[in-house]
Amino acid sequence: MRPMSQWSLEPWMLDTLADSLGVERERVEGLVRSKVIRVKTYRGLLYASIRRELAGYPEGTVIVFGRGWSRVIHGYPPIQRAILLRVAVPKHFIDKVVVEEKLNGYNVRVALIDDRVIAITRGGLICPYTTARINRLLGKEIKEALRELGPEEHYFAGEVIGLENPYTRYFYPEAPRFGYFVFDLFRSGKPVPPRLRDEVAEKHGIPHVPVLGVVDKNDVDSIRSIVEKLNREGREGIVMKDPGYRVHPLKYTTSATNIGDLRIGMRFFMEEGRSFLFSRILREIFRAYEEGLEGPKLDSLALELGTAILRPAIETVKQVARGEMVAEEFELEFANADELNEFIDYMSGLGIDLVIEKTWEENNSLRARIKKPKDTWIEVRKILETGLAPID
Amino acid sequence: MRPMSQWSLEPWMLDTLADSLGVERERVEGLVRSKVIRVKTYRGLLYASIRRELAGYPEGTVIVFGRGWSRVIHGYPPIQRAILLRVAVPKHFIDKVVVEEKLNGYNVRVALIDDRVIAITRGGLICPYTTARINRLLGKEIKEALRELGPEEHYFAGEVIGLENPYTRYFYPEAPRFGYFVFDLFRSGKPVPPRLRDEVAEKHGIPHVPVLGVVDKNDVDSIRSIVEKLNREGREGIVMKDPGYRVHPLKYTTSATNIGDLRIGMRFFMEEGRSFLFSRILREIFRAYEEGLEGPKLDSLALELGTAILRPAIETVKQVARGEMVAEEFELEFANADELNEFIDYMSGLGIDLVIEKTWEENNSLRARIKKPKDTWIEVRKILETGLAPID
Repeated sequence: MRPMSQWSLEPWMLDTLADSLGVERERVEGLVRSKVIRVKTYRGLLYASIRRELAGYPEGTVIVFGRGWSRVIHGYPPIQRAILLRVAVPKHFIDKVVVEEKLNGYNVRVALIDDRVIAITRGGLICPYTTARINRLLGKEIKEALRELGPEEHYFAGEVIGLENPYTRYFYPEAPRFGYFVFDLFRSGKPVPPRLRDEVAEKHGIPHVPVLGVVDKNDVDSIRSIVEKLNREGREGIVMKDPGYRVHPLKYTTSATNIGDLRIGMRFFMEEGRSFLFSRILREIFRAYEEGLEGPKLDSLALELGTAILRPAIETVKQVARGEMVAEEFELEFANADELNEFIDYMSGLGIDLVIEKTWEENNSLRARIKKPKDTWIEVRKILETGLAPID
Repeated sequence: MRPMSQWSLEPWMLDTLADSLGVERERVEGLVRSKVIRVKTYRGLLYASIRRELAGYPEGTVIVFGRGWSRVIHGYPPIQRAILLRVAVPKHFIDKVVVEEKLNGYNVRVALIDDRVIAITRGGLICPYTTARINRLLGKEIKEALRELGPEEHYFAGEVIGLENPYTRYFYPEAPRFGYFVFDLFRSGKPVPPRLRDEVAEKHGIPHVPVLGVVDKNDVDSIRSIVEKLNREGREGIVMKDPGYRVHPLKYTTSATNIGDLRIGMRFFMEEGRSFLFSRILREIFRAYEEGLEGPKLDSLALELGTAILRPAIETVKQVARGEMVAEEFELEFANADELNEFIDYMSGLGIDLVIEKTWEENNSLRARIKKPKDTWIEVRKILETGLAPID
């Protein structure tokens, strides 16, 4: 990879950033120095990535530098979380609520740039792996749709799900390996109404997130039963939208996800951080309150919560004590060795050094078993050696 | 209370601070401006309090300004926590280990300044309430001891326990209302060996913390049984010291305390913060690992943990929903109304506005029921009104 610091100095790029973001050139220089703005490349495409909310542009905004043109793709805005459905839904919405399924994967914006389908992560980076997989899966369909809509003003946002990705590990029967489900179509930086999004997606054969119902904002019971059904199926939750996108969406997750997140997260208890634990516990406190859980039902939640916190963490300590590495493991598919190397370089540029365990050819593609070592491994080893607490 | 900013400007005070701490005068000025150094008064005594570790002086160091003299009282150094006894104890200690009981109260240094017994909190403030109560309880004994030892070079550090204090709420049969138990005697800024401390304390009739045993550093089983006994009695834990103070002490708390802290802390779940929750959970993870908890024993810990987290928090939400205030309540004893007002002013100077519920005379003293409103009250009201999560 070429060192990027050299790019940050070219005056025309500073001008482009200042113009695109509507901030002063001097401020842009400062933001580049403090690494709020990072300049990166992807296969000859030069782009800047904004690491925090800036001048009204959300974190993860991307500015692509073309020859004589530039393109801004807004960061995907954070979605507020409802923690008491019965209070939040009637207060927040205007009349109707579109209830969509919230899929458990990672948020990816897909744009057509220089007639190439590009996949951008939530943080505002062009992920070579995601770009390659989405191209193979839906490249033709997405290109066709965005060409028809106008590729300069439009892009999709959606969830990548399935097990074959380097970021999340959650199984869906509808996309066991790799899937992309659109949840928003953006036009000039603003999302279009859900129905329009579905029409476009369906016309071009692009999957979109399931719409589970359109209900009156006072019919919270219906929303609750949708959530309960998802909970029984172990699915993540819902995003609620105004049919005309007149107010911003709200999200709500199932208890299965709150507890399941803890169960998965506590395997790597030293890195997930305090707010990970706290935020999920908070959700269950207010859910238990709203649902009036008492007696044996509350005991059973307490046992489930305590178990989700303790067991995976103790298992990790035992694993480290046995001398095993604590790592996330995943299996990815690449077109060829170049694509694999490009991805390893990309992750290494983010400070993540992956360990390739094994590679093999299968159905004309290259598959790889990859490990991502976790800080928990180092931290727990230190505790096992000293017996001392890391913090107080 | 007089505004303190004026004091911070007097040149002789800046010189005294620079000399005492061994840092440059300009740096002292900066530290006063950034409020790392605060200047305060207590009954005509002018002092500076250091809010973080500075030039080798621990957080909570106090410098008293006299007429032609000054006095430095070192902050009480943080004690490292053992999280795996079997590893930490043999590695850390040299030969023998003095096992003392860790009492659950608040850390107070007591010094003789201008022939007055002064009580300093961990944070480095002279607490008027604690000073008054310790004077009434042990003023004569402490004065006698420190006069004999040399009041310039010596001071005590100990735990205030009992229910009648504004900081901690924990019942001890040996001091149900207010007690002070010395755990260290400092000479020229360094703690003396535990045996010497006990000799001094016993000679002058000053209570000291119980010494529960002196064991070989490899006899961790004996330490474990001491901890188990304390756990069964619901007591806090132990501090382990080298008999000659050649290495620094280690602390270890019982499971009863780790879980009990959560149970009490989760009543005020919005203020206790994420690391409060995480640190206590961490202790239980490593204890469960070290004790090899499995099957039903682990389930029972998981249930206990989950219950300690959920129940008090849900109770608080219900309380707020019923329109009740969430506050800490305590009952304090004062010599008279002046002493009560002095204490209320002191707390208000720390940004804590107390609510006096009721006062009455009893046995020649003034008793007061006081409430300390908690931020959790405001935060939970906000959630109940909006239904939205405060953070994500």
